[in-house]
Amino acid sequence: MIIDCHGHYTTAPPALEAWRKLQVAALDDPAKGPARSALKITDDEIRTSLENAQLKMQRERGTDVTIFSPRASFMAHHIGNEATSREWSEICNDLVARVCGLYPDNFVGVCQLPQSPGVRPERCIPELERCVSELGFIGCNLNPDPSGGHWKEPPLTDRWWYPLYEKMVELDVPAMVHVSTSCNPCFHATGAHYINADTTAFMQFLTSDLFRDFPKLKFIIPHGGGAVPYHWGRYRGLAQDMKRPPLKELLLNNVFFDTCVYHRPGIELLTKVIPVDNILFASEMVGAVRGIDPETGHHFDDTKRYVEQIEALSAEDHHKIFEGNARRVFGRLGSKPAREVNAAAKR
Amino acid sequence: MIIDCHGHYTTAPPALEAWRKLQVAALDDPAKGPARSALKITDDEIRTSLENAQLKMQRERGTDVTIFSPRASFMAHHIGNEATSREWSEICNDLVARVCGLYPDNFVGVCQLPQSPGVRPERCIPELERCVSELGFIGCNLNPDPSGGHWKEPPLTDRWWYPLYEKMVELDVPAMVHVSTSCNPCFHATGAHYINADTTAFMQFLTSDLFRDFPKLKFIIPHGGGAVPYHWGRYRGLAQDMKRPPLKELLLNNVFFDTCVYHRPGIELLTKVIPVDNILFASEMVGAVRGIDPETGHHFDDTKRYVEQIEALSAEDHHKIFEGNARRVFGRLGSKPAREVNAAAKR
Repeated sequence: MIIDCHGHYTTAPPALEAWRKLQVAALDDPAKGPARSALKITDDEIRTSLENAQLKMQRERGTDVTIFSPRASFMAHHIGNEATSREWSEICNDLVARVCGLYPDNFVGVCQLPQSPGVRPERCIPELERCVSELGFIGCNLNPDPSGGHWKEPPLTDRWWYPLYEKMVELDVPAMVHVSTSCNPCFHATGAHYINADTTAFMQFLTSDLFRDFPKLKFIIPHGGGAVPYHWGRYRGLAQDMKRPPLKELLLNNVFFDTCVYHRPGIELLTKVIPVDNILFASEMVGAVRGIDPETGHHFDDTKRYVEQIEALSAEDHHKIFEGNARRVFGRLGSKPAREVNAAAKR
Repeated sequence: MIIDCHGHYTTAPPALEAWRKLQVAALDDPAKGPARSALKITDDEIRTSLENAQLKMQRERGTDVTIFSPRASFMAHHIGNEATSREWSEICNDLVARVCGLYPDNFVGVCQLPQSPGVRPERCIPELERCVSELGFIGCNLNPDPSGGHWKEPPLTDRWWYPLYEKMVELDVPAMVHVSTSCNPCFHATGAHYINADTTAFMQFLTSDLFRDFPKLKFIIPHGGGAVPYHWGRYRGLAQDMKRPPLKELLLNNVFFDTCVYHRPGIELLTKVIPVDNILFASEMVGAVRGIDPETGHHFDDTKRYVEQIEALSAEDHHKIFEGNARRVFGRLGSKPAREVNAAAKR
């Protein structure tokens, strides 16, 4: 069984984006915006959007379940206000729930949170609870920078975020730290902002006692942990210079890295320096990089191949990376089949 | 001969910081600030500041020349205005020039630029020219974010920067892309802001035609290129998806990476994925990480050891990384001994 812990619904039917455009066009006068009921997407449209994309790749690559969330770059928490973000998040999450309902063996849901710049994170709790208790979701994506590249929110380790963390622990759901698009012309979204956010979050965790306050709080840092594994010596050294505990003790009970690193040498490094218990298989397909690597003849984001090629990993290690760790980190998945998690959803 | 292309004067005598504090205290009324002549540092104080630090480590580790610039985190371009930054930069550059004068075999100078948020980069040209033609410096550090973590300047590929680039090409000096301290509480300076800036700059270069406009412009991306080598597949894939030329053709005539990666697996990855012609030896000592790695018993930043341990590198490769590439990228150094470069300075 292979669980891909990081997939977004990047291929949603075009009606979704069209609805969003109408919502954005009416920001000044939301009464003129589209009714939620104006968004019409049929089950067949959903099937088509997946059959030639995520499902095809699951079959071709031999992966089984994708932990699936709304398109990250479309979260765009900077747009409008809290109400804008709430409505958009509910719609996107509902659509992911429909995907999970149609393909309960293939997808398990993770929600987008209705964050909005400067709005207290506890305002996201109702949507998190709804997604977990009604839609059967098992995690959330948490955006450390709802401004979209201006970084105006307090660090993730600030008490600003604590009420949300309390709820996450109560519900037993981890968060993937995942920014959305960049409105800052300095930062290319998928090439810089995403990776920078990963690195930034890790360093925030390193300098704080967050996990003393929340021993059961869990974060996945995507995109292979940004720059962190490549600079693992730097981070070990910085922690030591700051008289922090060793990284293993300080944060490796709480922080996990995915395998969205699109070449074999990167995966080699990741699996060499990060303990195998902290690595979760992921590909982010269909995501940031869609082409075929001319050096291998395979998709850049077919990360399963790279992981399989690492000879230093034992069968047990592979099992942890491909399945076991995801079942442990996503406590609501646990040992259950995806179908069982989805069956618990109240639709 | 081993050339370390990335060292800062982090150990400058305390009088320097004391002077800076007086300057900062008088920002509202610079007339009340310290006279430049109030900064008194003797040659012996300079010697002491280096003998037990950079020079000791050069001797112990067996490196020969450090390409040396003012302390990066102290550049703090966000403080005050253009005049503040100009005076501070001149003072810091003059001090590095004195270091080079005292130890002409051990150090060659690279300057801090008197950048200031929102001030056009061509305003830095006089100081760059002074450092190159009068102090014998061979490069500059260019801060892509003089705001200190708010990223308000245009990307490095914007025409905003072109007049400075024209001068760099004319003078045959490369720039190391190097931010200063972070005023944004989200970004730890050496653990996040530095690394993010490296990644950000690379992605800016990837998406632009800057090097078609400036075929001879050269940048060194420090800290092993931020996250870039670890995500080399991602960058190759992003470039391909965007129909950009292959990275080698697009930017590897102009962009170079240093070896400030503080563990062997990171250096292994760097030397595996980045062509050897694009890697310049550096340690950044005495810099961001000062401790001893308990896993090796050696300083984290003793990067020479890691490079030497990479068996896949030939003697010729080692020569390029340790010396040849630096002599090529720093055109004003070229094949000359450090002493000859320093002798050309008009003191």
